[in-house]
Amino acid sequence: MEKSVFKYRIEPNRVDFTGRISVSSMFDMILAAAGEDAHTRGFGVDALAVNDYGWVLSRICFELDALPKEYSDLTLYTWIGGYNRLISTRNFQLADAEGKEFGRAVSQWCMLDFNTRMPADMNTMAKAHEGNMVDAPEPCERPRRLLAVDSEVVGSHKVAYSDIDFNHHMNTMRYIDLIFDSMPIEVIENLQSVRMDINFVKEALYGDELSIYGNECDGVRQYEFRNAAGEVLCRAALEIK
Amino acid sequence: MEKSVFKYRIEPNRVDFTGRISVSSMFDMILAAAGEDAHTRGFGVDALAVNDYGWVLSRICFELDALPKEYSDLTLYTWIGGYNRLISTRNFQLADAEGKEFGRAVSQWCMLDFNTRMPADMNTMAKAHEGNMVDAPEPCERPRRLLAVDSEVVGSHKVAYSDIDFNHHMNTMRYIDLIFDSMPIEVIENLQSVRMDINFVKEALYGDELSIYGNECDGVRQYEFRNAAGEVLCRAALEIK
Repeated sequence: MEKSVFKYRIEPNRVDFTGRISVSSMFDMILAAAGEDAHTRGFGVDALAVNDYGWVLSRICFELDALPKEYSDLTLYTWIGGYNRLISTRNFQLADAEGKEFGRAVSQWCMLDFNTRMPADMNTMAKAHEGNMVDAPEPCERPRRLLAVDSEVVGSHKVAYSDIDFNHHMNTMRYIDLIFDSMPIEVIENLQSVRMDINFVKEALYGDELSIYGNECDGVRQYEFRNAAGEVLCRAALEIK
Repeated sequence: MEKSVFKYRIEPNRVDFTGRISVSSMFDMILAAAGEDAHTRGFGVDALAVNDYGWVLSRICFELDALPKEYSDLTLYTWIGGYNRLISTRNFQLADAEGKEFGRAVSQWCMLDFNTRMPADMNTMAKAHEGNMVDAPEPCERPRRLLAVDSEVVGSHKVAYSDIDFNHHMNTMRYIDLIFDSMPIEVIENLQSVRMDINFVKEALYGDELSIYGNECDGVRQYEFRNAAGEVLCRAALEIK
């Protein structure tokens, strides 16, 4: 089994005011490739929907040594590294037009049963995984488990129509947008490289009132999303250089 | 000269909770095609940027008889219909997998001088337009001129990093998102067809505090975006069936 290969060009609608792709657009690109690869191999969201199941991202880390500029070409490699009862792991590598690796990601997915909104046993997908795993080293350290930290409110948001996706919950890119929107814009303007770890704990649903807590310590920015009941929905950590 | 043709498939990351493409994603698709077509023909944002000019959308109307579902195929036709000193007109038609037209749009663009942030004379682009115009009927009634109406505040928004694009102003899709986010979600769930007219009056810039005014009368929803100084930035009207 070989890694799947996707070719992309950074269209102007993906870049931010710096003329480089935004981090959330970069996430959108790798997650779309993941969806496309799963679809082609017969275990996409459409195939799972027949049983009222869906893929839900549990944890992800993403390292970017650089943010490509408008109209630059890149190659994305993605493959499934393995799975256990609860988690399927998909890896990514990104290379620029010269073939130089500039990014990598490890994502961990669970299968959600939409009837109960609880995780389903991945072994029901064992057949889909067989013959679709690639024996290659993981491209970087796996997503870290993020713990609670002392933090203060840096933003708030009520989950709206445009935030929710086909899974009826707030989209990964919107978490990232809200995190970046809460930062001083100079941090984004001067960003050279980033590692981002995200842990999804509980879904944010339409109408939920979110509070975003943030903290910066030793060059690491940590964030936590909580709902009105104070429940933790998502934690993220960013190392920005 | 022939219309340019683009083929698309509705990827899952473009659909909303109803499993159909969202109106703002549909706008993103046609505007990306416009950018791509201009780029290919040598008058894209990259070519204009050399002179510190950029394309800015002035008015647009978009009619959709239906919203395509996830994984459906569509064909997009786009062409420049004409231009005058201030405005270049680009038209669009959308057809489904069976070749049936289900959407059409007319967009009017001006060229912005980024040094003055004022419109530039389109005649400087006369060469680019020559040989690139298609003599075909306009696909629908042109964008309407929208007037002020009595309305009340239906939303507010502070322009954030993720709202602004390479032009340093709030992106068209974010206006549409904010309009749809202010509607009762049942209206979107039951939406069968829509005509949307938008007039852009003044740019919304990073940090601007926007108020969104809305009004519903005789089946037409009208919206107006104003900044903290009370200046009108954008007006939109929607006929939803």
